[in-house]
Amino acid sequence: MSEIIYGRWAALETLRANRREVQQIIFAEGVEEKGVITDIVSVSKQRNIAVKKVPRRMLDDLAKGANHQGVALRVSDYPYVELETLMTIAEQRKEKPFILILDLLQDPQNVGTLMRVADSVGVHGIVMQDRRGVSVTAAVTNASSGAVEHLNVVQVTNLVAAMKKLKEYGVWMVGLDIGPNIEPIDKTDLNIPLGLVLGSEGEGVRRLVRDTCDIVATLPMRGHVESLNVATVGAVTLYAAWQARQWEGWVPPR
Amino acid sequence: MSEIIYGRWAALETLRANRREVQQIIFAEGVEEKGVITDIVSVSKQRNIAVKKVPRRMLDDLAKGANHQGVALRVSDYPYVELETLMTIAEQRKEKPFILILDLLQDPQNVGTLMRVADSVGVHGIVMQDRRGVSVTAAVTNASSGAVEHLNVVQVTNLVAAMKKLKEYGVWMVGLDIGPNIEPIDKTDLNIPLGLVLGSEGEGVRRLVRDTCDIVATLPMRGHVESLNVATVGAVTLYAAWQARQWEGWVPPR
Repeated sequence: MSEIIYGRWAALETLRANRREVQQIIFAEGVEEKGVITDIVSVSKQRNIAVKKVPRRMLDDLAKGANHQGVALRVSDYPYVELETLMTIAEQRKEKPFILILDLLQDPQNVGTLMRVADSVGVHGIVMQDRRGVSVTAAVTNASSGAVEHLNVVQVTNLVAAMKKLKEYGVWMVGLDIGPNIEPIDKTDLNIPLGLVLGSEGEGVRRLVRDTCDIVATLPMRGHVESLNVATVGAVTLYAAWQARQWEGWVPPR
Repeated sequence: MSEIIYGRWAALETLRANRREVQQIIFAEGVEEKGVITDIVSVSKQRNIAVKKVPRRMLDDLAKGANHQGVALRVSDYPYVELETLMTIAEQRKEKPFILILDLLQDPQNVGTLMRVADSVGVHGIVMQDRRGVSVTAAVTNASSGAVEHLNVVQVTNLVAAMKKLKEYGVWMVGLDIGPNIEPIDKTDLNIPLGLVLGSEGEGVRRLVRDTCDIVATLPMRGHVESLNVATVGAVTLYAAWQARQWEGWVPPR
């Protein structure tokens, strides 16, 4: 199967991650060879990947109307990994597991934003269910600025079963929810083997997913608008967890 | 002057905040009267506001092609406030000033997301420059889910001058930036009279704005993708600041 990745950063990071087979790089005619585009051209030469120039309208079609910024890649499917791989990665890095678990999120933009943050805080992987929610589509790759191409994503048939398996490995499930009698997130020490569970945009975490959590926490709100975007909640909590780990693995820029 | 606000939450929160004169409520023909729409209709009756049904295409035009969800309001201009008002609000609430300062942000979506978070953590106001950056447009109101209609926004001609004035009031300017020799945000006690300064999407904080900051801090990153969206950086830092204030003003849901 082949898929079309579009957008400058999405294309560049897909090439850099080098995990998918890249069959073709497609530029819109007239796209200026500067910045990210120059980097893409340079990789194409190094790796001897076919480059094709097409009328912009053809690219519009390939990207199904999305903002492709004049570039697309024809690539093999997204390389999902197995649940066990995440544990191996944590072990290799000598870090406590740090996993993001998405319960049926619907909006590729939210999933993409979360992936970009997940990359930024160095999670070992992301677990999501393979039906009824968003999977790693081109829209997600684009919305993540290509970050997802570097991440380890597990797609499972049954999210609760996957959570239980992670619990067997000693990972604590911390779910985010809104409602009465839930402690704010800072009451939980997040410097633990952590599976952070986020619910979908409209519905939050499903009942059974929530019941499988060891801890349920909430992000306080005092505003007029009654809810926050799940990507915002996730970003704040992922950063709180990484801060609790004292920015483990951070190399300050020099 | 009149302006068109579009989108369900944007329309409802504009009505709820009740700070703009609402000249007309405009529905697309065939829009279903349920959920948020029911609430809008109910406010229109209470406040005796004219309601008009128009073909969807007319609404598309009014919203300039944006996703209006079948509803728009014709309203008076956004009610900006004066810088001094923010200090009065902090004083009335008996809280240390908590102000968000935006340096020439360009993307209404980012500004909207930040406004929604700013509302959620209870800032006393937002300061932004009146030229070269985004102002509070209908796109911002929409992207903030209407949160900005409840917020106190100051538009100034000279951001540096406004920062200096706030400093005279005893507010500390904390700027977010990326680069060498910058301490991570958790090294700064954010439980202070705080002006949190965020730079624009491409350029970050301008030189002179940065030089006017008392403290410059960074949000660590360890990922492959080299930057985070400013809305993400702002959300994480606004929440860190509110957490440092021990969720002051939070009323847990019952």
